[in-house]
Amino acid sequence: MTDRPADFADTDCVFCKIVAGQIPCHKLLEDDHVLGFLDVGPVSPGHALLIPKGHYPALHDVPAETAAALGAALPKLASALREVGGFDHYNVLQNNGAPAGQAVFHVHFHLIPRRSGDSRGEGVGLRFDWPAQPLDHEAAAPLAEQVRAAIG
Amino acid sequence: MTDRPADFADTDCVFCKIVAGQIPCHKLLEDDHVLGFLDVGPVSPGHALLIPKGHYPALHDVPAETAAALGAALPKLASALREVGGFDHYNVLQNNGAPAGQAVFHVHFHLIPRRSGDSRGEGVGLRFDWPAQPLDHEAAAPLAEQVRAAIG
Repeated sequence: MTDRPADFADTDCVFCKIVAGQIPCHKLLEDDHVLGFLDVGPVSPGHALLIPKGHYPALHDVPAETAAALGAALPKLASALREVGGFDHYNVLQNNGAPAGQAVFHVHFHLIPRRSGDSRGEGVGLRFDWPAQPLDHEAAAPLAEQVRAAIG
Repeated sequence: MTDRPADFADTDCVFCKIVAGQIPCHKLLEDDHVLGFLDVGPVSPGHALLIPKGHYPALHDVPAETAAALGAALPKLASALREVGGFDHYNVLQNNGAPAGQAVFHVHFHLIPRRSGDSRGEGVGLRFDWPAQPLDHEAAAPLAEQVRAAIG
């Protein structure tokens, strides 16, 4: 969380420039807190982005009210995009930090349409590995207790 | 959106059983609408899930109030997990439909910690391809117009 104003803009940030109307976008949804528009580098047709209007580099920087607005806008945007875009399935992906694949350091949720035959390792679109391991319950219990204490 | 009650449960759903306390979990966060807990099949240490308490198969089924609660809980959970879990970077991933990688048909946001050296194609954790194409602006303009009209 930060105490910067919700309309804080980073003058070097491409998404702040889109919010300010200095760079055009194909707008999909807008309210006081958030803006949705088509990604200019889609990984599948209809790939959209949802961003807070204020400049927050990562999700843990976003204040609760703005985060709630982002959450409320996601199903609204997904419903309308599905209706119009001719797809049933989609991924929502939000990356924080360069090692997590973040390229623009202004929080953005990707909404990535997925179509039949577009699953892991086939066709185009987002593909991901999923190297799951069994949970170590002995380590998990104290970790969970510490997280609950940190949330308060 | 559906008109089912917020406490609707699918008796065959593993996440509904966790919400009901019939299956134990390492709980991280809870409020009236949402529950956060550690994934039992982590792709990286500290891998957490955030779910609505009601049974909604996909994100576009989630009512606005619950979606806002999910959005507000995400940075809260991310902040606490980072503080405790010793990582700076993370992905938030939410899959809708089997072709998008969804395995449990009760909405869930993955919060996947990422660490240095854990980037695309290296180490463990979530790795994804990103086959971006330039946006076809001629097709994008009418699509965006239709989405805005569908949102109303």
